[in-house]
Amino acid sequence: MNLVSKVLQQAVDEFAQLPGVGHKTAFRFVLHLLKKKPEELKKFGNTFIQLQEQVRYCKECFNITHLDMCDICSNPSRDRTTICVVEDIRDVVSIENTEQFKGMYHVLGGIISPLDGVGPSDLNIQALLDRLQSGEVKELIFALSTTMEGDTTNFYLFRQVKPFDVNVSTLARGVSIGGGLEYTDELTLGRSLVNRVPYENTLAG
Amino acid sequence: MNLVSKVLQQAVDEFAQLPGVGHKTAFRFVLHLLKKKPEELKKFGNTFIQLQEQVRYCKECFNITHLDMCDICSNPSRDRTTICVVEDIRDVVSIENTEQFKGMYHVLGGIISPLDGVGPSDLNIQALLDRLQSGEVKELIFALSTTMEGDTTNFYLFRQVKPFDVNVSTLARGVSIGGGLEYTDELTLGRSLVNRVPYENTLAG
Repeated sequence: MNLVSKVLQQAVDEFAQLPGVGHKTAFRFVLHLLKKKPEELKKFGNTFIQLQEQVRYCKECFNITHLDMCDICSNPSRDRTTICVVEDIRDVVSIENTEQFKGMYHVLGGIISPLDGVGPSDLNIQALLDRLQSGEVKELIFALSTTMEGDTTNFYLFRQVKPFDVNVSTLARGVSIGGGLEYTDELTLGRSLVNRVPYENTLAG
Repeated sequence: MNLVSKVLQQAVDEFAQLPGVGHKTAFRFVLHLLKKKPEELKKFGNTFIQLQEQVRYCKECFNITHLDMCDICSNPSRDRTTICVVEDIRDVVSIENTEQFKGMYHVLGGIISPLDGVGPSDLNIQALLDRLQSGEVKELIFALSTTMEGDTTNFYLFRQVKPFDVNVSTLARGVSIGGGLEYTDELTLGRSLVNRVPYENTLAG
């Protein structure tokens, strides 16, 4: 796309590198920003410079923060005996938004994937084992993707944490709430039959 | 969406104000940027600050530029006798990319739309009439949207330019190239029948 003006081209190129954004959408974004007041456009740019300057990773759980420790790790009312192991910061946000979990997190920073060249040493696994040393943690919840890579990582972690006195659980698999049976894949539907739960239990939730 | 970290929230909010971008997509954008090198993230922010500092509107055609006059208006090889009247800067880019037009442009900055409170005085119409004063312009091409508002604006402009010795044309309406007849709406198909062209003419193109 030839944008006529060089000053636009750079802004469009910056947007176009974002996932799922092509040059046409990027151009729409830039024109939208140009319709705003100059100070708002300046604020838009400054936000990302500040992000670069301020963003850090929590030294305990590797969540994003602007301090040494994230808001969750430094919150005294959270349950320090449970750690939920996730792949990515996005997963922390997803689980936090359910408001069903009051424990701690551990962000692995990926999953074991030999095809992508990601091995155990590329992930924050040693830091997780270090957190288990104190004996404070009673339960680990594996909340990784339900893919082959996720299962591999689960299994690797399971063997690594065996020496510690800690219960290991994983997220329940089953039919989505609000989802029709005809749209559920066979594997999930089969698993949800095998792991069926007493009806009374669902009433409690 | 509660983003756990305040430093992220602002960046996500900035993205989420873009057209068609929700908070989930905005968050994906921010995480994508965070995976890049710090200097690239800084460059991203700086691009928009520069955009705000450098962007100007051409004093002749109101296209975007970083100078007093845009690249098109200052290009001596363009045909100054024809002006294509468009709604928006995006339309200039679309027409330029066809490589079929070598004349000048005039960006109205919108179309007359009483429902949205846009009247003739909100558009760059007087500047267009000023450009016609010199008598250099021989043809005006109306290339506005084919909506009721576009037609209203066309008609208003047509009456305004009547005192000048200038031919007025509008874009040809018809069946899309590569489009099947069954997908063409009745109005367009009807118009394309009424305005049918000699077959030899299509061979020349």
